[in-house]
Amino acid sequence: MNDIYFMNEAIKEAMKARELMEIPIGAVIVKDNEIIGRGYNKKETGNDATSHAEIIAIREACKNIGAWRLLGCTMYVTLEPCAMCAGALVNARIDRAVIATKDEKTGACGTVLNIAQNKSLNHQIELEFGVCEDESKDIIQEFFRDLRDFKRKNKNKENFEN
Amino acid sequence: MNDIYFMNEAIKEAMKARELMEIPIGAVIVKDNEIIGRGYNKKETGNDATSHAEIIAIREACKNIGAWRLLGCTMYVTLEPCAMCAGALVNARIDRAVIATKDEKTGACGTVLNIAQNKSLNHQIELEFGVCEDESKDIIQEFFRDLRDFKRKNKNKENFEN
Repeated sequence: MNDIYFMNEAIKEAMKARELMEIPIGAVIVKDNEIIGRGYNKKETGNDATSHAEIIAIREACKNIGAWRLLGCTMYVTLEPCAMCAGALVNARIDRAVIATKDEKTGACGTVLNIAQNKSLNHQIELEFGVCEDESKDIIQEFFRDLRDFKRKNKNKENFEN
Repeated sequence: MNDIYFMNEAIKEAMKARELMEIPIGAVIVKDNEIIGRGYNKKETGNDATSHAEIIAIREACKNIGAWRLLGCTMYVTLEPCAMCAGALVNARIDRAVIATKDEKTGACGTVLNIAQNKSLNHQIELEFGVCEDESKDIIQEFFRDLRDFKRKNKNKENFEN
């Protein structure tokens, strides 16, 4: 099993979010070639600002191994983590993050902010971008296109924000 | 009820953490002069890297009001939030954060990083430092002094990290 295999598992998680009309972002955490945590974005349906895919996956992984330090673990995530999630990766001492696509608005792994590799903090994360990039980007773009159509047809003024 | 009253409530939360031998950090979230979320650090006892006082308080507040946007809310917290927690405050659109004491190691509200008022993000938080500063700082310093004594006496080499 390789990075593409595990990123496809993260994409499966993203698809679960899409079914709930959530922005389709998914994540898995892998240790010794085994998935120990999974998560997908549930911010709107869960009414919880912290329910990002990465946070949910970290909580599950910590629970599974019975420790807050996720040493020797890699996170696979379909969109670049925001400040909260990049901070959580640092706090959990994750070794490596494989990120499908950059987030030009809130990405905190080098695109808008650099938290994941910030030398001022006590842990830095090895980063790799671009695994399954086109597929992950397409899923998100398609979601927003569909959402705009839905809103236009339904004159629904609810405000979906990332 | 004023900032000092609510910071004392955050300090009460910090004391609950201390009873569990957790680093004593507490937080409350206030809307319309009422506490809608409380939290204290449970990282070690909960085996969860995300179980910081602020994250727990945000989750509870979101649950209580049934929304992920904590509009019109103020967080009172005894120690400056880290990157994860400052990112969570931004994600939750918290209006204001009242912080008792700075964190020179990981503070992300201006001391080490600036996430709370970062112009590159889509929300900035009004900040106030120094409410009940001495009391909050004393509680943390006393905790680490007691912990060093405990470790020396018990030759306990467990690694407590912030």
